[in-house]
Amino acid sequence: MSEHARRIAAAQELMRSQGIEALCISVGSDLPYLTGYRAMALERLTMYVLPAEGEGTIVVPALEAPRVEAEGLPLSVRGWGETEDPIAIVDGYLGDAGSVLIGDETWSRFLVDLQDVNQNRGFAKASDLMALLRIRKSPTEIAKLRAAAFTVDGVVGQMEHVRFSGRTERDIAREITERTRAGGHETIDFWIVASGPNGASPHHDPGDRVIEQGDAVVVDFGGHQDGYASDTTRMFVVGDAPYGFNGAFEILHDAQVAAVDHVKPGVTAESIDAVAREIISDAGYGDLFIHRTGHGIGMDSHEHPYLVDGNEQIVEAGMAFSIEPGIYNPGEWGMRIEDIVVVTDTGVERLNRTDRAYRVVE
Amino acid sequence: MSEHARRIAAAQELMRSQGIEALCISVGSDLPYLTGYRAMALERLTMYVLPAEGEGTIVVPALEAPRVEAEGLPLSVRGWGETEDPIAIVDGYLGDAGSVLIGDETWSRFLVDLQDVNQNRGFAKASDLMALLRIRKSPTEIAKLRAAAFTVDGVVGQMEHVRFSGRTERDIAREITERTRAGGHETIDFWIVASGPNGASPHHDPGDRVIEQGDAVVVDFGGHQDGYASDTTRMFVVGDAPYGFNGAFEILHDAQVAAVDHVKPGVTAESIDAVAREIISDAGYGDLFIHRTGHGIGMDSHEHPYLVDGNEQIVEAGMAFSIEPGIYNPGEWGMRIEDIVVVTDTGVERLNRTDRAYRVVE
Repeated sequence: MSEHARRIAAAQELMRSQGIEALCISVGSDLPYLTGYRAMALERLTMYVLPAEGEGTIVVPALEAPRVEAEGLPLSVRGWGETEDPIAIVDGYLGDAGSVLIGDETWSRFLVDLQDVNQNRGFAKASDLMALLRIRKSPTEIAKLRAAAFTVDGVVGQMEHVRFSGRTERDIAREITERTRAGGHETIDFWIVASGPNGASPHHDPGDRVIEQGDAVVVDFGGHQDGYASDTTRMFVVGDAPYGFNGAFEILHDAQVAAVDHVKPGVTAESIDAVAREIISDAGYGDLFIHRTGHGIGMDSHEHPYLVDGNEQIVEAGMAFSIEPGIYNPGEWGMRIEDIVVVTDTGVERLNRTDRAYRVVE
Repeated sequence: MSEHARRIAAAQELMRSQGIEALCISVGSDLPYLTGYRAMALERLTMYVLPAEGEGTIVVPALEAPRVEAEGLPLSVRGWGETEDPIAIVDGYLGDAGSVLIGDETWSRFLVDLQDVNQNRGFAKASDLMALLRIRKSPTEIAKLRAAAFTVDGVVGQMEHVRFSGRTERDIAREITERTRAGGHETIDFWIVASGPNGASPHHDPGDRVIEQGDAVVVDFGGHQDGYASDTTRMFVVGDAPYGFNGAFEILHDAQVAAVDHVKPGVTAESIDAVAREIISDAGYGDLFIHRTGHGIGMDSHEHPYLVDGNEQIVEAGMAFSIEPGIYNPGEWGMRIEDIVVVTDTGVERLNRTDRAYRVVE
């Protein structure tokens, strides 16, 4: 049995145990996770209808059907022609299923149409069921995450030798994306280069600001390699660090290291957040740590588990997530340190291995 | 009044005339069309809640709030913290609105949550209302589409002088994406290089196939420049065209030219499709033209109007769409010619201006 066939069987077993009659999956990573096929995010509907028993069907635009069939998947393919109604076709495959899960990222226009065409069906989110399948990574998946992390670590190493001052954030970001692509990534999904006061906005878009002496620069980037995501953040400082930076950075570094070291099977997701937050708060920077400590990672850049207060989920071997506390001082500077880690049988493996100290650059 | 303020006012006027009480917009181009802000497609909800009267609110993750406020928009911003529930916040802004439109591309997980938290609210698709606003482009928008088309036309011209034979489809695609980015595009959204028999799959992913003498190659690519989309298809033939290609190409060329020439205010969308399809069918290739003739284009690569049988929409000045008939001969070759056109007061302007004949390359 292929890996995809095993995953489909596992999904159906979960569906039966939860009284779910069908699963409808469209765009996003759930579909390639189950079948190897990724739907185009377009106005033409692609939807995999998987009943709790028996074979599923991918309803797909006829002109994309050759892309599915090329893969040789254990399911049926129903190409729909340009003048057919794909909603009616999906509704037909759903039959008399009353309890249906809909893929998280499915466009709402299609869910509204499916609800309108049969008002006796109940749709719930597929999130929880799919997370049960996807949250623990297989050794193959971990190897892919490790390879993706290795590539971005290499780019961090290259950027240590690069001049920052006198260049725009956008220009640095362009260089990072080019180096990451050259390192083997298929896609670059985000490229935050936030210099000086811009660093205080955690999701800053790199712009025309020219980096200058005394700037702290948050560099946070990632993409996909062989279908799995990378994500790392390191700090670069041009010359001497700005006022107040070094003291805060020491705290941040301690918090990130302590949170990583806390990870092992059996601790809760929120406890990892708490370890980092307590160190930062005790030092008086609590109000400046304005986001959760981390997010799961796999085929998606952000997936379960989320390391956030209130998430009592127990961490298990095979889970992979970021640990990325930050301190943001509005109008002055920002800082963040981020590694991807994977939970092992006894503790934790850091997939990002570069030095967590900040780099001094020209 | 700024252009965005005018668009918001126009949306509210339409809502009132249709008895809609609120509009909820998340990821996709509707939000930047109305407000200039594009939501990140992540698990943290961003949603613009616009009532039919009064000021709207963008509910946005707190750490992304600085990105919105930087734009100085005529609306309120409500950043939500990591331990808040954004669904409850959106639900609060919706108040007692019963008739609500939900943005087409909004993730279903958020729609399901909004439906669950208040079962008295009815959600319908925002598609029709947003299309009424977006389907006729302003002179500024047309200028941006023209500039984007000019860039990809330039890349087509460069590719005429490039060797195809002995190279993989993927390598040609890489060169096209690099040239398009160098030409000024922010993103490259698709890059179809389909050689020999692969050309018969309209949405072929460029792969490891090595292009050889006698191959016909479908080159269809586009991206975004200054927020607006490009999309063009031209044919490249390596040496002598394969058996049966020239006769079919002459028909396809005639069909594409005739369909373009048919465009003017007052004709229906489906009639443009019919003009191309009739010429191709009369020549005996009707079964090999397996997709609609075109799609609207603007901030999205695919938007209203769609040139497809059954769409009786009347074409008006300012509408922009592709005209891209194709003939696909399974196992042998495929062909497509595509221009973006915009409807003028009296006829049509082709935004893609390169010669529609196929290029002979080495």
